[in-house]
Amino acid sequence: MSASLILYSYWRSSAAFRVRIALNLKGLRYETRPVHLVRDGGEQHSPDYVALNPLQLIPTLVDGDRVMTQSMAIAEYLDEIHPQPALLPTDAGGRARVRALAQIVGCDIHPLGNLRVLQRIGSQFNADDEQKGIWMRHWITMGFHALETMLASSKETGRYCHGDTPGLADLCLVPQVYNARRWRMALDDYPTIVRIDAACAELDAVTAAMPEQQPDAP
Amino acid sequence: MSASLILYSYWRSSAAFRVRIALNLKGLRYETRPVHLVRDGGEQHSPDYVALNPLQLIPTLVDGDRVMTQSMAIAEYLDEIHPQPALLPTDAGGRARVRALAQIVGCDIHPLGNLRVLQRIGSQFNADDEQKGIWMRHWITMGFHALETMLASSKETGRYCHGDTPGLADLCLVPQVYNARRWRMALDDYPTIVRIDAACAELDAVTAAMPEQQPDAP
Repeated sequence: MSASLILYSYWRSSAAFRVRIALNLKGLRYETRPVHLVRDGGEQHSPDYVALNPLQLIPTLVDGDRVMTQSMAIAEYLDEIHPQPALLPTDAGGRARVRALAQIVGCDIHPLGNLRVLQRIGSQFNADDEQKGIWMRHWITMGFHALETMLASSKETGRYCHGDTPGLADLCLVPQVYNARRWRMALDDYPTIVRIDAACAELDAVTAAMPEQQPDAP
Repeated sequence: MSASLILYSYWRSSAAFRVRIALNLKGLRYETRPVHLVRDGGEQHSPDYVALNPLQLIPTLVDGDRVMTQSMAIAEYLDEIHPQPALLPTDAGGRARVRALAQIVGCDIHPLGNLRVLQRIGSQFNADDEQKGIWMRHWITMGFHALETMLASSKETGRYCHGDTPGLADLCLVPQVYNARRWRMALDDYPTIVRIDAACAELDAVTAAMPEQQPDAP
């Protein structure tokens, strides 16, 4: 009964998707407040939302007086206030590995394909939809190639990215795979990623977090 | 005497700069192995380096058998194996705040201006140096505006980003300010950022980590 948790979310936002999986894995109840990223020029730019999140990005999590941004920071917060089930392993080396896998998605794939970046390559470079697709697939390909190599070559990889319990790396991976499919990317070169994504898709925590299941999905 | 710590670094890489500050704040000795990001098409693409870091980005930290990538994950690893002085506060809310400030830099500013992205807007959109500068300053401006707002409006901000000890947010901020100056950005709109950067510049851990002080600086 954490009725005080409020998630500002958009159904198709990868970063909000991550936090929804984290909340669900922890079994935490939360209220969804949709922020429509396109309608009316983008509700994330409204004064009320900017007051919560000056970077004008999704998501924001509010827990009582604490307003939190950045999905990976929020997931670690949830892991600290509700340690079980754990999103990170207990050993420092394993934690570094999980955080690195998460950050490959969170730093080096997703930010390059965020809505604001696609809008920017449109406005600054006149990129059309085809050019935007080429741009997107370029960065996802580079990131997935690295992730696949790291996952396939490590004995620490299990049913999920790290061992046999889902965690921080998985909750970043799943939305990125969803996003890659949306951009019609062939995933044949990434069998380990596809296998882990399929394992995650069997979890109620993941299915309930899927974009199509959100109250603001069309 | 942690002679086993090896940092694959490039003098001007923001992400390597972050890890150098973290290592220095912890008082950890390390060996620098320079990876030249431009020479010979970029040594980060050499087979030997790709075997360590499949994403072909800087830095990589090696601690014995453990090969680690992603600067923020590495900094947290160092904080866990050498807890003092701490890079994060002890309370979950404060930790979430510091990680969010770090991730604004590490996810939403720096990855958009990384060398590989500048090369890509050149190759895909024929961006020239002037266009690259406009692109860089756009993303730094958006990120710094958010950071300045968050820092200036919070009682948790002290001499540094969070209280009066330097930590994870500061070691991300300093290289980004260095980078902004390199792109000749006016910083008048960000007095809190400039003040914190100046406080950091008085730390030996920061001065020793500056790009110009590195063995591979020209």
